[in-house]
Amino acid sequence: MTECEPIRGLWCATLTPLRADGDIDSTALVAHVNGLFGQHVDGVVLFGTTGEGPSFSVFERCAGLESILTAGIPSARIMAATGCASFVDTVSLVEHALLCGCPRCLIMPPFFWKDLTDEGVFRYYANLIDRVGDARLRVYLYHIPQLSGVPIRPEVIARLADAYPGILAGVKDSSGDFVNTAALLDHVPQLSILSGHEPHIPRLIPAGGAGTICGAANLYPNLISALLRPDVAADDETRIRTLLNIVLRFPFVPAFKAIRAVQTGHDAWRAVRPPLIALTRTEGEILFDALRPIGLDRDARSAG
Amino acid sequence: MTECEPIRGLWCATLTPLRADGDIDSTALVAHVNGLFGQHVDGVVLFGTTGEGPSFSVFERCAGLESILTAGIPSARIMAATGCASFVDTVSLVEHALLCGCPRCLIMPPFFWKDLTDEGVFRYYANLIDRVGDARLRVYLYHIPQLSGVPIRPEVIARLADAYPGILAGVKDSSGDFVNTAALLDHVPQLSILSGHEPHIPRLIPAGGAGTICGAANLYPNLISALLRPDVAADDETRIRTLLNIVLRFPFVPAFKAIRAVQTGHDAWRAVRPPLIALTRTEGEILFDALRPIGLDRDARSAG
Repeated sequence: MTECEPIRGLWCATLTPLRADGDIDSTALVAHVNGLFGQHVDGVVLFGTTGEGPSFSVFERCAGLESILTAGIPSARIMAATGCASFVDTVSLVEHALLCGCPRCLIMPPFFWKDLTDEGVFRYYANLIDRVGDARLRVYLYHIPQLSGVPIRPEVIARLADAYPGILAGVKDSSGDFVNTAALLDHVPQLSILSGHEPHIPRLIPAGGAGTICGAANLYPNLISALLRPDVAADDETRIRTLLNIVLRFPFVPAFKAIRAVQTGHDAWRAVRPPLIALTRTEGEILFDALRPIGLDRDARSAG
Repeated sequence: MTECEPIRGLWCATLTPLRADGDIDSTALVAHVNGLFGQHVDGVVLFGTTGEGPSFSVFERCAGLESILTAGIPSARIMAATGCASFVDTVSLVEHALLCGCPRCLIMPPFFWKDLTDEGVFRYYANLIDRVGDARLRVYLYHIPQLSGVPIRPEVIARLADAYPGILAGVKDSSGDFVNTAALLDHVPQLSILSGHEPHIPRLIPAGGAGTICGAANLYPNLISALLRPDVAADDETRIRTLLNIVLRFPFVPAFKAIRAVQTGHDAWRAVRPPLIALTRTEGEILFDALRPIGLDRDARSAG
């Protein structure tokens, strides 16, 4: 796959491991990404929601991307999540990703202002693409209204796809609303439609979707990979739903990191950036034990 | 008033004028602030919501503060709004404000993550104050849940005030919910309680509130000043309510800037940062004309 080709398959929205001082542990990040690549993961998205992207500065996000490139992770298997609250910061991150040879950018709408009109959302992305002015850019729109507060409606996406053919490359739908995902498949079939909601993967692929960018792939890449196969087992669908039900007893990023800490035996994985609060070691173990009945403790350990 | 004294009276959440290239017009900003100081305004808050703070980079916000200080605006009459989505950016802005001799910081909660617990909000501010580690700091908490997505409950504020006496200096309540404001007056009477919702000002002052930090002061400082007086006229209360009803037919920042453009005759005032969309000149004039029946066209022109 080249850097510009539309993405397909299993992409992981990577967790961002932290050092004791709260800074990014790039050594652990590189090891994690390489581990994922050994388990059916096609590519990684850096600094998305699961990666606590909005909790890092522009400088940290640039340095994080550079660190995995320097360590030899191929740019064709990287997407940079570059959406910020401010337009200028988003422009900086997109330009930096392009400079680094990573033209694929997952871009959340600006998430401070609320009640934006469709025209406001359209113009935001249009202004951004025009300002960056680089035909290599590949924009993946990131629809996660429950956190961004700003939905990107399928009609707006269709208008952007018409205005910027080639540059508009895909959509990550993390709304958890399959009606919206189906509308995307209908309105913009030329784009890579990716689900951020793992239980939707088995329905998405036969309907023409391209794949997933998801967080559970940090923990159970083999399970997510199984959900992408045409012969997906009913058992695996049950397992992913049960996993999310159990994890969502807690805020999901600290929960994912706590499970990763148990999987790897590296307690440092539990650390999160403020305002998130790390689960205690005990909470992490309780969570992990709750996954035994669906066999995800074993799968998990083997994925460590 | 010294830089550290609790603020009282009329503080204006300044609009941020832009040049044709979208950058901050610091000359126009300085002229605007000096104009406000000539009309009963006690101090200005830079880069709050009305000032489109979250639409600017950390660098731009630092440069904006430096530009008004260099122009001679006294630090005792400035508060820096320093809340960002990321903890590290907020730390940078608070440290920069302190370096500039502006210890008063209006701090919004981190506004990407939702459903934070009270413990999460408490720890965020506690971590921030501890990290900055400067006894000169004066924190004004910014409660604007309709935009930040993260309420700061009075119980959390009381806990912070107990933990950081002196440093916790005030609260700006922009919720528009006087029940919340009354709870603040009850829970943390030692703090400066300021309303961001102009129609509440006449009720707040007799109840023990310290004053206001508001956006309408950019346009009608004389009217806001009148609302702060013990002998506030019923007419003025009607005028402020009518003003907001008329303005809120549009997103309020573009509407405020459009009115300012008519007041000053400087069309450049209409410009806003993406994702906001500027009102057209015609929309601005219609808005301004709608204010005639309540006499705010005249007041406005005299305030220009």
